[in-house]
Amino acid sequence: MEIKRPTPIQTFPPDAKKVFSGVIFDVYQWEQRLFDGSTATFERLRRPDSVIVFPVTADKKVLLIEDEQPGRAPVLTAPGGEMDEGETPLEAVARELREETGYEAETYELWQAIQPSAKIDWAIYFFIAKNCRQVTEPKLDAGEKITLKPVDFDTFVELGMREDFLNREVSFKLLRAKLEPGKMDRIREMFLN
Amino acid sequence: MEIKRPTPIQTFPPDAKKVFSGVIFDVYQWEQRLFDGSTATFERLRRPDSVIVFPVTADKKVLLIEDEQPGRAPVLTAPGGEMDEGETPLEAVARELREETGYEAETYELWQAIQPSAKIDWAIYFFIAKNCRQVTEPKLDAGEKITLKPVDFDTFVELGMREDFLNREVSFKLLRAKLEPGKMDRIREMFLN
Repeated sequence: MEIKRPTPIQTFPPDAKKVFSGVIFDVYQWEQRLFDGSTATFERLRRPDSVIVFPVTADKKVLLIEDEQPGRAPVLTAPGGEMDEGETPLEAVARELREETGYEAETYELWQAIQPSAKIDWAIYFFIAKNCRQVTEPKLDAGEKITLKPVDFDTFVELGMREDFLNREVSFKLLRAKLEPGKMDRIREMFLN
Repeated sequence: MEIKRPTPIQTFPPDAKKVFSGVIFDVYQWEQRLFDGSTATFERLRRPDSVIVFPVTADKKVLLIEDEQPGRAPVLTAPGGEMDEGETPLEAVARELREETGYEAETYELWQAIQPSAKIDWAIYFFIAKNCRQVTEPKLDAGEKITLKPVDFDTFVELGMREDFLNREVSFKLLRAKLEPGKMDRIREMFLN
């Protein structure tokens, strides 16, 4: 499976200069020509790309997680995280799934790849992982507390559309699918067949 | 109207240090104690808060805009922008509305105030502006090209739920309202009464 990285919403010109290197974020600036020919300093960020995975177990449960991090209330979401340097999306998603849940998948399907932010060069790859089985214990960072929440597909859809579900792009997809005849059936099939 | 700023999703501790000051983004870092007692450098951003306004004209049109910026394709959205230093949300929304459209409103209602990002301390205030009338010509930055798109309420809802509408929080609210009995009628009333 060849996975193409989505392009940033805002084009970074070749002369964009990195002006700060952070733990997560790097800051770039450049002189941008405006519509009247004048220029202004434009600023955009880069951060490592992320993967998010919806694991479906052998008994057709979707494995959500409750994820607590220091200084942030627990949120309901799906396993995932930042890609390491040099990793492909597929390598990252298998690693994150194993680390956060102890599960391994038989196959991965790319559901969507997006750049959600106009000001940050940051791609997110959403995967559906089929026929997942637990092969080991989770191996969590000291900065993570994760509780597994296996739910059936319909519950996943209900939870995924909620205000407090931690990914608006997923909520958006599910809500749109709810309103478009036949669309939710196709998503159900992607998850369960 | 007293408007409370929503709190950031991630708490910034008092010893968070600003390590970079940018044109838009400031970068903060601190040593965060993790669940096992060890520490790690945490990094979060701050950027100026934003306002977004849905202007409703005297003849009950919602005034959307097509907004083009250098290096970014035109997007369909609502008027708005960054708050200036020392401005209140209400002052900012009146200024942005006037600058981008040339319109003034009789009254403003706060629709929602949120912090959309876990990694950025950034509040967005959504307003509905009632009984808007054109009082002057738009006064655009050299970095903006804006075309006014007045639409009726039902068209606003259709456009606002689309993939290419530039605000997922608004799309999310509209989609949820579509699925919840009575909810869309209450939003229609907020806009049109």
